[in-house]
Amino acid sequence: MISAENLQVQAAPAPRESGVEFNLKTYLQERKALVEQALEASITITYPEKIYDSMRYSLLAGGKRLRPILCLATCELLGGTLDMAMPTACALEMIHTMSLIHDDLPAMDNDDYRRGKLTNHKVYGEDIAILAGDGLLAYAFEFVVENTVGVKAEKLLKVISRLGHAVAATGLVGGQVVDLESEGITDITIETLNFIHSHKTGALLEASVLSGGLLAGAEGDAVQRLTNYARNIGLAFQIVDDVLDITSTQEELGKSIGKDIQAQKVTYPSLWGIEASRVEAQRLVDLAKAELSPFDAAAIPLQAIADFITARTH
Amino acid sequence: MISAENLQVQAAPAPRESGVEFNLKTYLQERKALVEQALEASITITYPEKIYDSMRYSLLAGGKRLRPILCLATCELLGGTLDMAMPTACALEMIHTMSLIHDDLPAMDNDDYRRGKLTNHKVYGEDIAILAGDGLLAYAFEFVVENTVGVKAEKLLKVISRLGHAVAATGLVGGQVVDLESEGITDITIETLNFIHSHKTGALLEASVLSGGLLAGAEGDAVQRLTNYARNIGLAFQIVDDVLDITSTQEELGKSIGKDIQAQKVTYPSLWGIEASRVEAQRLVDLAKAELSPFDAAAIPLQAIADFITARTH
Repeated sequence: MISAENLQVQAAPAPRESGVEFNLKTYLQERKALVEQALEASITITYPEKIYDSMRYSLLAGGKRLRPILCLATCELLGGTLDMAMPTACALEMIHTMSLIHDDLPAMDNDDYRRGKLTNHKVYGEDIAILAGDGLLAYAFEFVVENTVGVKAEKLLKVISRLGHAVAATGLVGGQVVDLESEGITDITIETLNFIHSHKTGALLEASVLSGGLLAGAEGDAVQRLTNYARNIGLAFQIVDDVLDITSTQEELGKSIGKDIQAQKVTYPSLWGIEASRVEAQRLVDLAKAELSPFDAAAIPLQAIADFITARTH
Repeated sequence: MISAENLQVQAAPAPRESGVEFNLKTYLQERKALVEQALEASITITYPEKIYDSMRYSLLAGGKRLRPILCLATCELLGGTLDMAMPTACALEMIHTMSLIHDDLPAMDNDDYRRGKLTNHKVYGEDIAILAGDGLLAYAFEFVVENTVGVKAEKLLKVISRLGHAVAATGLVGGQVVDLESEGITDITIETLNFIHSHKTGALLEASVLSGGLLAGAEGDAVQRLTNYARNIGLAFQIVDDVLDITSTQEELGKSIGKDIQAQKVTYPSLWGIEASRVEAQRLVDLAKAELSPFDAAAIPLQAIADFITARTH
């Protein structure tokens, strides 16, 4: 979990407001609060209550809300508004939640706990957990269409296509399949490792960044730059995660550590070593930030989020 | 399974072609062939092959293709073309296939066979089956956006919203939840039975009929008539299914019969008796057909499909 505790990016004036210092911690807290408010309102409980309870249980279980925050930030970067992007931001979190519920199932990773709470199927049963995931995924698309205002229909269609692509076999489903196939295999290649991460987590992060841009009307070069930014921070994030699994104390990380080594899992540090992994993560973050250079001060939040990835210690 | 074998609706001239007799059997066969051709082309196998194989295994496993055929027929009824509706028709079948794969899972109905073939999880494993369903559902939305031509973006958004609504907790997911909750309960009410069927199967049938109309530009009264038509044939279809489970021989039905009685399942004939169930099914079909009266000869295929529901003996 990204925690912005004790981290302040002394960056520069906040975007479009000169003389005000940009504070990432405050920024992330405020955005997270806005997203959670919108998510809370997105699903009303009605008959049959159990399925709505189950969807809300996982959707409102906390987390960093990184995907919605990226979507909102990119929409603003391209001159759009928070209101314009909020339905898509919520849809991204619904989709992410679906993937967590299904990944936790006994037939998949078989996890009993997530973020310190029982997983969905431990509370509601496997059948309901499968259906809650299906329901969240389908509802995400309806929700975007029914709640987005001030965006041209053609642009919204592009966003919908992107969301679908990021979840399907071309995205997180494909990544999860290769991850499952790689279990217990100790000699997987860097290409396979990259495929897993760029699909299992990268695809939806990319869609988060890109959808915000598309809603605000991004085209051509801007779309390419946002895509490169997203791919680089996505991979850097994963590398840092792998490093922290080795170097962090359990207390710092807030979850059990050394899991990868115990599971003999191939990771970036197991392939490259810790120091080279850190260097590579920093290189990717620098590349990501360089992609944003034409946007000037408006890109400060996205620059700060990129910096935060390598700076975090837990 | 609807089989049009030995059934000819001696209806009237075929729509927009006077002097030609409309033959439902030929019509359904031709439409099914068109849909299967489009489905075959809709998913190309690439890395990781297993998930694409798994999705294709269930998507191309046959079946009556009723939902796509309804979508195509309604689009034509409202003056649209087959090409206009084919991507949505395929998406409807992808969504329907997802619901079958997930319903068959051990945590749900735990079925080993469907249409005489091993179910998806028996061939590919539970993990892949869950992911194949997720992949098909997400891809359905991308597929509609990327492949529909000649339809205004605003109309396509309406279709997407409808599809989402038909799958989410407001649709088939909600129906499946109540069906699971009703297992083993022998005194469920007619209201609960209606809820299960109108959501578990009715919602997607309704979306099939309606989406074809929306693509062709249906508005106002036409939308309401199509909705009523779809609801009435959906319920009639279920009632006839329940009756055939009791009256048919195993050979005629092509699947094991008397399953409902064995499972002490509450059905329409168990509540009303066989004869009253037949009368009610006929009444619903007549209502459905009456909704189409303003469309004249163009509605012949949909009229014939409605008639076929009560006429079928297997």
